[in-house]
Amino acid sequence: MKDKAIVLLSGGLDSSTALFIAKKLHKCHCLIFDYGQKHIRELNSAVKIAKLAGCDYKIIKMCFPWKGSSLTDDGLNIPYHPRKKIGKSVPDTYVPGRNTIFISYAVSFAEAIGAKKIYIGANAVDFSGYPDCSPQYYAAFNNLLKFGTKRGDIKIEIPLIKKTKKEIVNLAFKYSVPLKYTWSCYRGGDVPCGHCDSCVLRQEGFSAAGKKDPLL
Amino acid sequence: MKDKAIVLLSGGLDSSTALFIAKKLHKCHCLIFDYGQKHIRELNSAVKIAKLAGCDYKIIKMCFPWKGSSLTDDGLNIPYHPRKKIGKSVPDTYVPGRNTIFISYAVSFAEAIGAKKIYIGANAVDFSGYPDCSPQYYAAFNNLLKFGTKRGDIKIEIPLIKKTKKEIVNLAFKYSVPLKYTWSCYRGGDVPCGHCDSCVLRQEGFSAAGKKDPLL
Repeated sequence: MKDKAIVLLSGGLDSSTALFIAKKLHKCHCLIFDYGQKHIRELNSAVKIAKLAGCDYKIIKMCFPWKGSSLTDDGLNIPYHPRKKIGKSVPDTYVPGRNTIFISYAVSFAEAIGAKKIYIGANAVDFSGYPDCSPQYYAAFNNLLKFGTKRGDIKIEIPLIKKTKKEIVNLAFKYSVPLKYTWSCYRGGDVPCGHCDSCVLRQEGFSAAGKKDPLL
Repeated sequence: MKDKAIVLLSGGLDSSTALFIAKKLHKCHCLIFDYGQKHIRELNSAVKIAKLAGCDYKIIKMCFPWKGSSLTDDGLNIPYHPRKKIGKSVPDTYVPGRNTIFISYAVSFAEAIGAKKIYIGANAVDFSGYPDCSPQYYAAFNNLLKFGTKRGDIKIEIPLIKKTKKEIVNLAFKYSVPLKYTWSCYRGGDVPCGHCDSCVLRQEGFSAAGKKDPLL
C-alpha cells in the first residue's frame, strides 16, 4: 500500500501539477483552504481537481480577521504589474503568513493520520515574489519539523520549486493534469482576467511550452 | 509608544504570566484559539485575562477536522498519570501541530499589524512532554521566520521556557497576574479536577513557591 501524503491544493496550475506528481507515489489527501479569497472559483476548481485525481479532500475554513492583502481585503484592488516587475518585490497580493498557516495545518493532519510527506506546488522561478515560496523557507520549515512533531519524520516536498513555468506546463501535460478545470487567475469570473500576475505567468508558461491553455 | 507584540493566550497560568511580562514592554494583542477543546472554561478565562490586562484580543475559531488528541476527541478520555511519568513521553493530550498552527496565525497577525514579537508561555521544565514546547523547536521556528516573512524581523519570545513551575508562580505574583481568573485544568467545570497532568503540575508549582492557588 502506498504511503500517505498531504497535498496543499489551491486548484491552480502549480498545486494541481504537484498533486498529480505526488499521487504517483502516495495515497494523497488534499487540503483546500477557504481563507477569505474574494471569489470561490478557486475553491470549486480545487474540489474538482481533487475529485478527478481520485483523492480525499478536506476544506479548511479559516478565520483571518486581519487585513493586509488584496486577495482578501475588499478595500484593496488586485494590482496589474508590468511583466518586468513581477517577482521583483513582494506585491500586495501577498497574504501574510499564508503558506506558514497552510503547512501548519498540513503538519497537524499528517501527524493525525500518519502521513510523512506534505506536497506544496511552491515555485521560486516564475512567481510573484512571495517570501514564503523560497527554497530557504522550505529548508527551514523541514528543520522545524524535526523538532516540532511527535515522530520527527514529516517532510515537505517541493517538486516544482526550481521549475520554470514552461517546465511546469510540460509536467502538467506529462502527468495528465486536467488543466481545463484548474484556475490560476487572482480574480473570479468565467474566464481568466489575463492581466493579473498569476494570469501573465501562466500564459507565458503555456506559450513557452508551445501549448494551448484549455481555459482560453 | 511601545512596540506591538502578539501574545498567544490560553488563559492558563503560563500564558497569562507571559502576557503580563510582555505587557511591561509592549502594546500587546492577544490571540485566543477555539480549536475544539471539550470545554469553554479555558476560553472564558483567556478573554477575562486579556480584558484585565487591558489588551485587545481576537478569538480564532479553528477548523480541526481530524482526531488524535484527548483534548479534542470525544472518543478519548483525558488521562491521569502518576507524577513520575508526566513529561517522560508524549501523552495523548498532545494536539498534533497545535503550537505550530497557533504561532503561524500569530506570524500572519504580526505581519499584518507590524508587530515584531510573538510571546508564548511555553515551558520545557515542568511540562507534559509535548514536542512543540522544546527550546530547539522555538530556535528552529525563529530561523524559519527570517525567511518566511516579508520583513524577516519577527521573533518568538519564550520567557518561561526554562523556568520551573515554582518560578512561574513566583513570576505570576511579581507581575500581579490575576490568578483567580486563570484556568489550567484540562477539564472544564467549576473547580479544577486536581488530577490531570496540568492540575498536578500547577499544584506542585504553588506548593513549591509556598503560595495558595486562589482557584482552590
